[in-house]
Amino acid sequence: MRILILGAGLIGNPMARDLAADDQMEILIVDQQVKRVEALRGFTNIQTEVADVTHSEILSDLCQNVDLVINALPGFLGFGTLKNLIQLGQNVVDISFFPEDAFLLNDLARQKGVTALIDCGVAPGMSNLLVGYIQTLLGKLDEVKIYVGGLPKVRQLPWEYKAVFSPIDVIEEYTRPARFKVDGRVVVKEPLTDPELIDFPQIGTLEAFNSDGLRTLLKTIDAPNMVEKTLRYPGHREKILFLKESGFLQKETIKVGNQSIKAIDFTAQILFKEWKLGDKDEDLTVMRVQGRRGNKEVRFDLLDYFDAQTGIHSMARTTGFTATIMARALLQGMISEKGIVPLEKLATNHTLVQFVLSELKKRGVKYRQIN
Amino acid sequence: MRILILGAGLIGNPMARDLAADDQMEILIVDQQVKRVEALRGFTNIQTEVADVTHSEILSDLCQNVDLVINALPGFLGFGTLKNLIQLGQNVVDISFFPEDAFLLNDLARQKGVTALIDCGVAPGMSNLLVGYIQTLLGKLDEVKIYVGGLPKVRQLPWEYKAVFSPIDVIEEYTRPARFKVDGRVVVKEPLTDPELIDFPQIGTLEAFNSDGLRTLLKTIDAPNMVEKTLRYPGHREKILFLKESGFLQKETIKVGNQSIKAIDFTAQILFKEWKLGDKDEDLTVMRVQGRRGNKEVRFDLLDYFDAQTGIHSMARTTGFTATIMARALLQGMISEKGIVPLEKLATNHTLVQFVLSELKKRGVKYRQIN
Repeated sequence: MRILILGAGLIGNPMARDLAADDQMEILIVDQQVKRVEALRGFTNIQTEVADVTHSEILSDLCQNVDLVINALPGFLGFGTLKNLIQLGQNVVDISFFPEDAFLLNDLARQKGVTALIDCGVAPGMSNLLVGYIQTLLGKLDEVKIYVGGLPKVRQLPWEYKAVFSPIDVIEEYTRPARFKVDGRVVVKEPLTDPELIDFPQIGTLEAFNSDGLRTLLKTIDAPNMVEKTLRYPGHREKILFLKESGFLQKETIKVGNQSIKAIDFTAQILFKEWKLGDKDEDLTVMRVQGRRGNKEVRFDLLDYFDAQTGIHSMARTTGFTATIMARALLQGMISEKGIVPLEKLATNHTLVQFVLSELKKRGVKYRQIN
Repeated sequence: MRILILGAGLIGNPMARDLAADDQMEILIVDQQVKRVEALRGFTNIQTEVADVTHSEILSDLCQNVDLVINALPGFLGFGTLKNLIQLGQNVVDISFFPEDAFLLNDLARQKGVTALIDCGVAPGMSNLLVGYIQTLLGKLDEVKIYVGGLPKVRQLPWEYKAVFSPIDVIEEYTRPARFKVDGRVVVKEPLTDPELIDFPQIGTLEAFNSDGLRTLLKTIDAPNMVEKTLRYPGHREKILFLKESGFLQKETIKVGNQSIKAIDFTAQILFKEWKLGDKDEDLTVMRVQGRRGNKEVRFDLLDYFDAQTGIHSMARTTGFTATIMARALLQGMISEKGIVPLEKLATNHTLVQFVLSELKKRGVKYRQIN
């Protein structure tokens, strides 16, 4: 089996290594940055290439004899690339988390006979699969709650935050209006609203606030109440709000001398240093996914840490391994759905859900079911 | 009497109007910005001119038949301009608050027979005169404390701060190491350190922190303990510290795309909008100057507000009127000192001190002596 991975960043890299551990796999991983590609040279079953896949002819060449593509490009390149891949008739596992509505590509994908699994990370991703799964257990849900955060293990002021993701994508989370459901209606609120403090075992108190993470669930799950919140160490949210109120996150251009710069781009650059998770900075991923019908509730909890043995960050493990396991499931013929497929759509297949959970567990990413 | 005022900003403007109210005065006020100069056209006894006085020939031309110059240029132009004025043999009242050591010009000024009164604002300025005055009342002091702040009357989050001064000068106050005296030794601490909460009548609780405002007093007053602190509404300091810790106040250049920009310049631009005291934004000035010898203490308190009748901001009143009154005293022959003269050096002259206090009082700026 030949898999093409687009993007050799902090998540693309461990995905390639995870898949290449299987002798039946042959991985071709492509990135624009030589440095990233070089980090993977010499691994068995991994070929690397430096290329700009936004050129459709280059992408088409790379797709020769490929059985599956994993799209791990940054969000702003995600949608266009997914469209090109579908045009080429390629099955795709997508973790680019693009802002556009993926369902716009549904007709095209069906027409091409393509399976495009979208949002295959931890959240969105496992959160979707688990919400779908809880619904198959309880029936139509009254309420869905998702709490998720990737955090540094060491809490360092002022931010107490570091991530494998680019600051501009994190800031995007803090500025994009959050959509959720209250009493059957879609409600749009400012992000960072409705803070609540929640105690997590082994971690302590975290602060949850509204973010725009429900995505496809808003369309696919018919629960009257649904909310997704981001988790951070208490205090972080207040500082973001302060930057926002002071104008540091505005998209308008600021004139400084004879230069013009978007405030948000400048701020992202400043925060890049502050928020960069170094190779040896240990991190953790915490998630709680709960569904309720009447007084019955099922919950899944995740607490995952940096893996010192492999040097792979938790955020890369929980995101990337979900994608590589979905890729295996697709290649093994466990998924027959065609078109744009978010993971909640696969949850009626309990064999698949158990496969995903047990493969993640093998890699140390353990979801604990409560009730 | 003919007075040349350099700078027609928020402080230059009311100074010109204050001096022009006296029929014996003829004011020539100069600025590089047409808009500022236009705001003063048509006033009796005021001539205006648009000119760049950093060119010494232009400055020399402007000084023809001038009896006294008030230097109200921004700090970064202050020292060079003062030097040029002394070279021209002009007596000067200086409120440019430049960072350089004014005493470097002392020999030149004496040689030219010039009186250059420096730091003639509220603090530095009246604070210096009052410390000097308290010393003449109590004898050699054990301790000097100065607390001062210019604040908006309406407290608006997140900053609860607005000023007539340029943000870059205010940020400079927050970044320049603070020098003070402890047990006879000059101590240098980070600015914003040693926060203390102090209750002020009519205002409520303010937060004081170290800033570098002692300036000439460090050399001229022989008290073993001396401190100057800036006053802000509580919470402001913490936000500045946060910006500082996050790298927003660094002087290093940040690359954003293909542009390069000093972080502090960008931040000043963002804060410009936030901190700009609008024409109708009411402000206040609060100051406490105290000197102690043994268990005897003398204190001066100032609380001054925006003047709705004239539309002159308190920060402009308390700063500018000190300068115009010193200018009058100098023109009236009340000051015989030559060279670089900070106001504390004039405090043995109680007639002068009382003249300054009573002239300020006439303009509604009331210092209250306690003990």
